Amino acid sequence: MFEAAEADPSLTDQQAKPLEKKLRTALLKAQYARLSKPGKALLIVIAGIDGAGKGASVSLLNEWMDARHIRTLAFGKRTAAEKNYPYFWRYWQQLPEKGRTGIVFGSWYEPLLKEATKKQPDQGVIQAHAEAIRRFEAMLVQDGIQVVKLWYHLSQAAQSERVKVLLADPNTAWRVRPGDVKVKKKFDRLRNAGALAINLTHSDETPWSVIPSADENSRSIATGEAILAAMHPTPAPRGRAVPQPAASSPAQASVAQRIATWREAPTLQGLDYDARLNSQEYNDQLATWQSRLAKLAQGNTLNKRPLILVFEGQDAAGKGGSIRRVTHALDARQFRAIPISAPSPEELAHPWLWRFWRNLPAPNNVTIFDRSWYGRVLVERVEKYARPADWQRAYAEINEFEAQLHDSGMHVVKFWLAVTKDEQLRRFREREASTFKSFKITPEDWRNRAKWRAYCQAANDMFAYTDTPTCPWHVLSANDKRHARVAVLQTIVQTLEDAS
Amino acid sequence: MFEAAEADPSLTDQQAKPLEKKLRTALLKAQYARLSKPGKALLIVIAGIDGAGKGASVSLLNEWMDARHIRTLAFGKRTAAEKNYPYFWRYWQQLPEKGRTGIVFGSWYEPLLKEATKKQPDQGVIQAHAEAIRRFEAMLVQDGIQVVKLWYHLSQAAQSERVKVLLADPNTAWRVRPGDVKVKKKFDRLRNAGALAINLTHSDETPWSVIPSADENSRSIATGEAILAAMHPTPAPRGRAVPQPAASSPAQASVAQRIATWREAPTLQGLDYDARLNSQEYNDQLATWQSRLAKLAQGNTLNKRPLILVFEGQDAAGKGGSIRRVTHALDARQFRAIPISAPSPEELAHPWLWRFWRNLPAPNNVTIFDRSWYGRVLVERVEKYARPADWQRAYAEINEFEAQLHDSGMHVVKFWLAVTKDEQLRRFREREASTFKSFKITPEDWRNRAKWRAYCQAANDMFAYTDTPTCPWHVLSANDKRHARVAVLQTIVQTLEDAS
Repeated sequence: MFEAAEADPSLTDQQAKPLEKKLRTALLKAQYARLSKPGKALLIVIAGIDGAGKGASVSLLNEWMDARHIRTLAFGKRTAAEKNYPYFWRYWQQLPEKGRTGIVFGSWYEPLLKEATKKQPDQGVIQAHAEAIRRFEAMLVQDGIQVVKLWYHLSQAAQSERVKVLLADPNTAWRVRPGDVKVKKKFDRLRNAGALAINLTHSDETPWSVIPSADENSRSIATGEAILAAMHPTPAPRGRAVPQPAASSPAQASVAQRIATWREAPTLQGLDYDARLNSQEYNDQLATWQSRLAKLAQGNTLNKRPLILVFEGQDAAGKGGSIRRVTHALDARQFRAIPISAPSPEELAHPWLWRFWRNLPAPNNVTIFDRSWYGRVLVERVEKYARPADWQRAYAEINEFEAQLHDSGMHVVKFWLAVTKDEQLRRFREREASTFKSFKITPEDWRNRAKWRAYCQAANDMFAYTDTPTCPWHVLSANDKRHARVAVLQTIVQTLEDAS
Repeated sequence: MFEAAEADPSLTDQQAKPLEKKLRTALLKAQYARLSKPGKALLIVIAGIDGAGKGASVSLLNEWMDARHIRTLAFGKRTAAEKNYPYFWRYWQQLPEKGRTGIVFGSWYEPLLKEATKKQPDQGVIQAHAEAIRRFEAMLVQDGIQVVKLWYHLSQAAQSERVKVLLADPNTAWRVRPGDVKVKKKFDRLRNAGALAINLTHSDETPWSVIPSADENSRSIATGEAILAAMHPTPAPRGRAVPQPAASSPAQASVAQRIATWREAPTLQGLDYDARLNSQEYNDQLATWQSRLAKLAQGNTLNKRPLILVFEGQDAAGKGGSIRRVTHALDARQFRAIPISAPSPEELAHPWLWRFWRNLPAPNNVTIFDRSWYGRVLVERVEKYARPADWQRAYAEINEFEAQLHDSGMHVVKFWLAVTKDEQLRRFREREASTFKSFKITPEDWRNRAKWRAYCQAANDMFAYTDTPTCPWHVLSANDKRHARVAVLQTIVQTLEDAS
C-alpha cells in the first residue's frame, strides 16, 4: 500500500511549476462550479504519519483555492464538555453545508489508529471502530457530503531527516511538534496501523489516497490532484446500495440479545381507546406524577443522564398540552422544547439528522422534541418529500442515532399520542369553532386527515422498525386527554426511576 | 410605584373568563400578524419578587399563545465557560429573530438587583449596571428587538401566604424554591431594589409594567394585557434619538484618561507607502516574527486573554496573504478565520452585531475576522445599505462592543492594510491576467474602485471615531506585501508581549 510513497518520489521545481499552475486553475474552477450550483459538500480528512507535512498541505489548499469557502475543522482531545455527548457529536456540529469544503484534522480515525498502534492491539475494538466509521461515512455520503481521505506518507528515513532539518533552524524548530519526534521509535507500528485503517475503511464512495510526502513539490501536486479528482462532478447514481449497510450495529444489542428481549412492536389498532380518567382522578394523579418528576429533576438523576423526549402523534392528539404538563414540573432553565417543522434552507444543506444532532441536551437538561426525526418516515414518506430509498434507510439511521444517544448515557423516551379518526374530527370541529383555538387548525390538517390510512400505516411500520429494547415506543391512547397526560408523566418518571 | 400591586387586587373567575377569552384571541392574532410580516422580535423580561408566580405566568403565555413560536430563555448563575466572555455574551447568543418571541428568566437585571438588595449597596456599582443595561437595551431597540419588562409584585403578607399554601400540600410543595421562602426576611430591600431598578431603566422604548400577582386571575389578565399592548403594531419612528445614548461609557476610559491618552487617529494619507523589504530581509524577519508568535501561542499567553484579529483594507491590499502568514504560526485547532460578507437572511433577522458576538474566541483561541463589524461604517455607509442614523450610531456601538471584549480580557488587534490607487490598479490587472488569481477580481471590485474617495473618507472617519487607547487601529502600508506581512506579525507579537 505504501511502496510508492516510501520510495519518496520528488519533483524538481521545473517539473512542478507547470503542473501547479494547471492544478490551481482547475481546482478554483471546480470550487466555483460547486459553489454556484451546490450539489454536495466536500469533506477532506487529513491523516498520516506525523511530521509528513499535513499542516503545510492544508495551508497550501487554502492558498491554492478560495480560502473564504474552505473551513479547517481541527479537533484535539475530546474535552470534558464533548464527552457528555456521543462520540460523533462534535463532528456533526461542524459538517460543511452543500457547496462548501471542510478539512478535518484530528478526525474520527484517531481512536482506531491509536488502538492499532498499540503493541498489543485489541482486534475487536479495532473492528468496532471501523464499523462505526463506515456507518458514519456512509450516512454522510448518502446525504450529500462527499468524503475524501488523504494519508500523508513517507519513508522512515525521510521522516527523520525532515524533522532534523526543521529542528536545526531556530526559525523553523517551532514547527516540529512533540509527536513528530516520537515517530521514529514506532514508525512500523504507525505505518501498519495506517495500512489497516485504510484497508478497513476504503470504499469507492469514501476513498483513501496515499500522498507521498518526503518532497514538498510532489506532496503538493499529489494533494491537489487527489482533491481535484474528488471534486470532478461524477454524478453518483443515488438511491443505490449504501456503501456499508447499517444493519449489524455493534452499538445495538447482539442478535441473541435482541431475540431474548424481543417484544412485539406496538400498533395503533392494539390500543384501548376507552381508557379515561375522571376529573378527580386526573387532578390527583397529575399532581402525584408532576411532583415525582419535579423531585427527580431537582435531584441529580439527569446529571449523568440527560433526557430526550420525543412527541409524535396524529394532528390534534394533544401533544402541546401533554408537553406543557411535563414542563410545568421542570425548571425553565432545565429544558428546551424544540418544535420541528419543515427544515430551513440551512438545514436542507446538511445531512437530514444534522438539525437534531445540534439540539441534544447538556448534562442535567431535557430536550423535548415536538415532532422529531421520525418525520422522515412519516410526513416525508407519505407526502413523498423523501425518495423511497431515503426514508427506507432512515429506519436504520434512526436506530443507529438513538443507539449512540443511549450509549452516551442519554435517556430517549418516545411517545406516540394516538386518537381515533372520529375523535380527531370532533377536535378539528371544536377548534374551528373556538376563537382562540382556530389557529391550531389549518387546511394542511384537513389534507393530512384525508390520508389517515397512509399515516397509520407509516406509524405502524415505524413502530415495527424502531421499537428497540433501549429506546422503546410508548404508544398511548389520547382519546381522553387526561389519560394521555398522566400516562406521559408516569412513563417518564418510571423510566428515570428504573434507570437510577 | 408598587401601591396598586400591593393592594393585592383580585378578579373573580366570572370577571376573568370573558376578559381572558378576548385577550387570548387578541394575543394570537397579534402573534400571527407578527409572524406573517416579521418586523420586530419581542423580548419579554421577567422579573419581580420571588414566589409571585413568575414561572406560572410564563406557562400561561405558552398556553395562551402559539408556544411553537415562543422560546423561553432561562439563565442561571454564569457558568465558568460563560465567564470567559463579556457579561452580555450569553444574552446575545439567544436573541430571538424578527417575528419571534423570547421570554427571559434570569435576565441582565440580576447583578443590579443583587447589588441593590444588599444592606449597604454601592451606588456607583448600581449606576454602572444601570448604564450598561440602558445601552444594551437601546441597541436592541434600535435593531428591531422590542423589549418589554414585567415586574411581578404583591404585598409581603400575600407573598408569605402564597408560599405557605403551596408548602402545605405535598403535591405542590415542590413548586416552592428556596428563594421563595427567604423573601420574607428581606422583603423591603427586595421591593426597594425593584423600584430603583425600574426607575433607572424605564423608558418609552423599554418600558416596565408592574403586574399585581397575589391573585392568579388578575396576574394572568395583567400579564396578557401588558404583552398585548407591547405587540400592538405602533410603528415606531426610526432613526430618531437613541433612548439612552451610548456616549459616556463607564467601560471606556474616563474623559480625563481619554485626554491623557489621546493620540491623533491615523489616516490613510499619513502613511509611508514606500516602506518595503527586500527578499532577504523579508525571509529573515518573517521567520523571526512567526517563530515568536508560535512560541507565544504555544505558551499560555492566550489562555487568559484570547485574541481577536480584525483585517480591513482596500480590495487587493493583501488581507488573505497576511492572514495566512499569521495562521502558519498557529495550530489549526487554535484559530478560526471568519470571512465576512453580506449578512445571511438569518443574520439580517437579528441585531447587526449578533453575527460577531456569535464568533468570539474561547480561551486560548484566536478568531480572525477577514473583514468585520467595520463593514457597517464602510461598505454599508458608502453603498447606502444602512441609513445614515444607523451607521452613525454604529461608531458608539462598536466602541462599546470592543470595550466589552477588552474588559472581559480579550485582545482586539485591528489592521487596515492600505494600498494606493495606482498599486490597486496594478494588482487588479495582474489578477485578471492570471488564470488562478482571476477569481479574486470581480465586477464589484471595479465598482468599489470607482468610489475610491468615498471609501477613503469612510475609512478616515472610522479611524477617527474608533481608534481607542485599548483597541487602537494599526494602519499599515501594504503597497509592499512583504512589508505589510511582517508589520502585521510584529504588531501582534508586540501587543501580546506588552500585555504579558
